[in-house]
Amino acid sequence: MTDNLIEETLAKFNRGVVMVITGNGKGKTTAAIGQALRALGHGKKVFMIQFMKGKKYGEVLAAEKCLPDFTIRQSGLDSFVMRDNPAPIDIELAKEGFKLAGQVVASGEYDLVILDEINVALDFKLLPLAEVVDMIHNKPATVDLILTGRYAPQEIIDLADTVSDIQEIRHHYTRGIKERAGMEY
Amino acid sequence: MTDNLIEETLAKFNRGVVMVITGNGKGKTTAAIGQALRALGHGKKVFMIQFMKGKKYGEVLAAEKCLPDFTIRQSGLDSFVMRDNPAPIDIELAKEGFKLAGQVVASGEYDLVILDEINVALDFKLLPLAEVVDMIHNKPATVDLILTGRYAPQEIIDLADTVSDIQEIRHHYTRGIKERAGMEY
Repeated sequence: MTDNLIEETLAKFNRGVVMVITGNGKGKTTAAIGQALRALGHGKKVFMIQFMKGKKYGEVLAAEKCLPDFTIRQSGLDSFVMRDNPAPIDIELAKEGFKLAGQVVASGEYDLVILDEINVALDFKLLPLAEVVDMIHNKPATVDLILTGRYAPQEIIDLADTVSDIQEIRHHYTRGIKERAGMEY
Repeated sequence: MTDNLIEETLAKFNRGVVMVITGNGKGKTTAAIGQALRALGHGKKVFMIQFMKGKKYGEVLAAEKCLPDFTIRQSGLDSFVMRDNPAPIDIELAKEGFKLAGQVVASGEYDLVILDEINVALDFKLLPLAEVVDMIHNKPATVDLILTGRYAPQEIIDLADTVSDIQEIRHHYTRGIKERAGMEY
């Protein structure tokens, strides 16, 4: 094999994963956070951008308190985005978050980058699909990338190496159990 | 309302959740770990018992290093358990793990208890289903309990408040990407 072929082959087997976690069931963001903690345990650096979220989730508090290699930035408000009529501020914050995501991914400084709820931001047309597809195509080979959220566009699913679809069989809201710190946020 | 009724009503709305995370897709254990980190961020205490696992996963390393309120115990070997012919040591370790689980849950000292891969241990007949059902029925009301693993028995699914079924749409193994520290373990 030529050097180039060896390099390509190695890249194929060592390259980072593009993972999509979608579906209507509980566990998408937490599955990504669990991947983050697993990576951190092996000394890796993780960056998570949470689109359409502004609330201080437990993962944000935990990362700030004791996980210096786990950076979380939120790029949304703590209020519901209207699907068919997003406010200009929702679009602006999503775009800012995506700009930051592009810089973080391209820097190669992080082993794992999580774009939390980006699938929803795409479905709600807060972000242009073509730019996200470009970012995935152009990411440094070794970076692992996780995209979470319902309604993952087919183009993203086609690009992904791993796709997990979390189906809701039951949710505790239907049993009268309400939202709670540590469980939903 | 009588005091008793008020108490019952409060318990209903504040009670802990029994959550099952099952299915053949990637993300079951990591979804539970993400719930753990979220709970830890809010100052809660978490105990996870990993059945049928003995390898030093990233989550174990991270918890040991910097998360004193996240205790993880493994109760298995770092080798594959034969479904139709488990070794006596596999059964013994599973039973030991479950004995510990019972003590941890009953103690009420932990806000969240995770029984990782217990569904598989049940499916492989390493543990008696009736005893796990009993433990769920008798757990302190406020404790959150998460049971992960493929092949969750119907009796456990029926008892659970939340059931997420993670379906594999694609896995990166099929694209020639191999097991890696920080991703699979």
